[in-house]
Amino acid sequence: MRPLGKDKAVRIVLDGMGGDHAPAEVVKGAVGASLEYGVEVVLVGKRDMLEGELRQLQASSKISIVDASDAVDFNDQPSKVRHLKDSSIMVAMNLLKSGEAQALVSAGNTGAVMAAALFVLGRIKGFDRPALCAIFPTPSPDLLLIIDVGANADCKPHHLVQFAQMGTTYMERVFGMKSPRVGLLSNGEEDTKGNQLVRDAHKAMGKTELNFIGNIEGKDIWAGVADVIVTDGFTGNVLIKASEGFSALALNFLKQTLQSRLEFRIPGFLLNPAFAEFKKRMDYSEYGGVPLLGVDGNVICAHGRSDANAIKNAIRIANQSMEQGMPEAMRR
Amino acid sequence: MRPLGKDKAVRIVLDGMGGDHAPAEVVKGAVGASLEYGVEVVLVGKRDMLEGELRQLQASSKISIVDASDAVDFNDQPSKVRHLKDSSIMVAMNLLKSGEAQALVSAGNTGAVMAAALFVLGRIKGFDRPALCAIFPTPSPDLLLIIDVGANADCKPHHLVQFAQMGTTYMERVFGMKSPRVGLLSNGEEDTKGNQLVRDAHKAMGKTELNFIGNIEGKDIWAGVADVIVTDGFTGNVLIKASEGFSALALNFLKQTLQSRLEFRIPGFLLNPAFAEFKKRMDYSEYGGVPLLGVDGNVICAHGRSDANAIKNAIRIANQSMEQGMPEAMRR
Repeated sequence: MRPLGKDKAVRIVLDGMGGDHAPAEVVKGAVGASLEYGVEVVLVGKRDMLEGELRQLQASSKISIVDASDAVDFNDQPSKVRHLKDSSIMVAMNLLKSGEAQALVSAGNTGAVMAAALFVLGRIKGFDRPALCAIFPTPSPDLLLIIDVGANADCKPHHLVQFAQMGTTYMERVFGMKSPRVGLLSNGEEDTKGNQLVRDAHKAMGKTELNFIGNIEGKDIWAGVADVIVTDGFTGNVLIKASEGFSALALNFLKQTLQSRLEFRIPGFLLNPAFAEFKKRMDYSEYGGVPLLGVDGNVICAHGRSDANAIKNAIRIANQSMEQGMPEAMRR
Repeated sequence: MRPLGKDKAVRIVLDGMGGDHAPAEVVKGAVGASLEYGVEVVLVGKRDMLEGELRQLQASSKISIVDASDAVDFNDQPSKVRHLKDSSIMVAMNLLKSGEAQALVSAGNTGAVMAAALFVLGRIKGFDRPALCAIFPTPSPDLLLIIDVGANADCKPHHLVQFAQMGTTYMERVFGMKSPRVGLLSNGEEDTKGNQLVRDAHKAMGKTELNFIGNIEGKDIWAGVADVIVTDGFTGNVLIKASEGFSALALNFLKQTLQSRLEFRIPGFLLNPAFAEFKKRMDYSEYGGVPLLGVDGNVICAHGRSDANAIKNAIRIANQSMEQGMPEAMRR
């Protein structure tokens, strides 16, 4: 793998065929990121389609194309992906593995991306299962990391312990946080609360070197009491998607209320920028992508419904993550 | 049990010792509900404490007191409750069972309330496990029911099917909804998504007479695509508490944004009523209480942190639920 460093040109490989709006929005996002962040993007997918999109955009930015004749179908079992050697995700993953690129972004099926990452890159020693982490703002200046938000629907207690270790390392190394407080998401604060998985994980976590502060209830997720919140990928996925839905609902209700109740009505053109700003801060889909931790490479999973803006943001996250020395930090 | 009917005086029994702010706030809530809804409230708990609170309020409303010498400690195992025959929740439950009251409200430990309900009232035939349902507003005129939101942290697939049946009955009988659409909360829309529990429940639900529309993702919970959303009590509890936390966070951020970004700043005295209105519509803790379905009686669990207003609202819900013929409707 070629040495990483800020003096070197950064090259990010992008799965051109992954996501609901591929390839059009993906290519648009690639061009945007390349212009805005000065990164070199390698688009992987069906060459003629990708070239067609690029031509339409009349882009002269640093984009190259690597051909991949197959695409992973949304209904394909993730386990089948490794056999689709010419699929865009497998070709892209191999470019990352060989060091042709320093990070990978895909808006394709998360299960497929994870399967390809496991097959091509392998795990980092000590972590049995890769996990997806989402990073949220909180009212305090600090960020909040939630892990796992969708990679593992069924978990064992030791997986949750490993997620806690991954999340801790990420916050320490990438965000320079000292001894992040780890909370275990549960249905009550008391040690005895939780389903079987959580009760067992609680006991196991208490025996580690982690800065484990105990169970965290849903209401306290964003209250700034923990820096890393650990949960299984089913609950975590429901949670972050619910926050997306709830955010939309909140805006809807609040707009109605503000515009109907006040004697002094606030005109839409004044309200809308505030609401857009809010959405940008609160909606995890605006963040573009979530890192896949535990695999031996810098992989960012973008939202399946990513538009060009989300793809651009995912590339920004990949770029940051790489500059901050992932996945080397995780390996140490 | 004495016959129910709107011409009869309604009597609601209230656990005077349950909740973080008992007995002071509970007694205040009882007085408020009695004045506002004209219901008769039977307060159960330590007589001297309850009388002391009532005296302070100089209340002359329809409140009576039934003495109970014990209280359930927050750390008591729910299974121990049945042996605490003189605890306020057991005495209250027996008043409901004997027909002295038509509904019960408690802000005490949910596990303890459920254990007492199961022991004293028993299950309604066909339902193995009682479940808590929360009712939310949606942007459409219809309400949304989520079940289970905390009674059963660990579930089997057939429990989820029964929760769906309870939720359906509640929406049909109490809110007059025709053939409510049942969605199964999952980490993806596809039939193959979910943890093991959800995948198995999905198959089982497809074989019932329920109006089952398949998996629902977190983002679509409040989108009006389903009327009844079924989940295990762990995920459901995390979800509704997270919506509470998220609601607070959303308000915080939005206030900041609205007050910092607009050239034309909106003064707090105009914004605050709108935000209060919003909180009232969105925050499940404002709803006062959630019905415990599947037990043979009208039991409402109030939030542990209930203040007087929440207790008053819980009594309103108990009153409504009773007027709408629960739990008879569930039995049919």
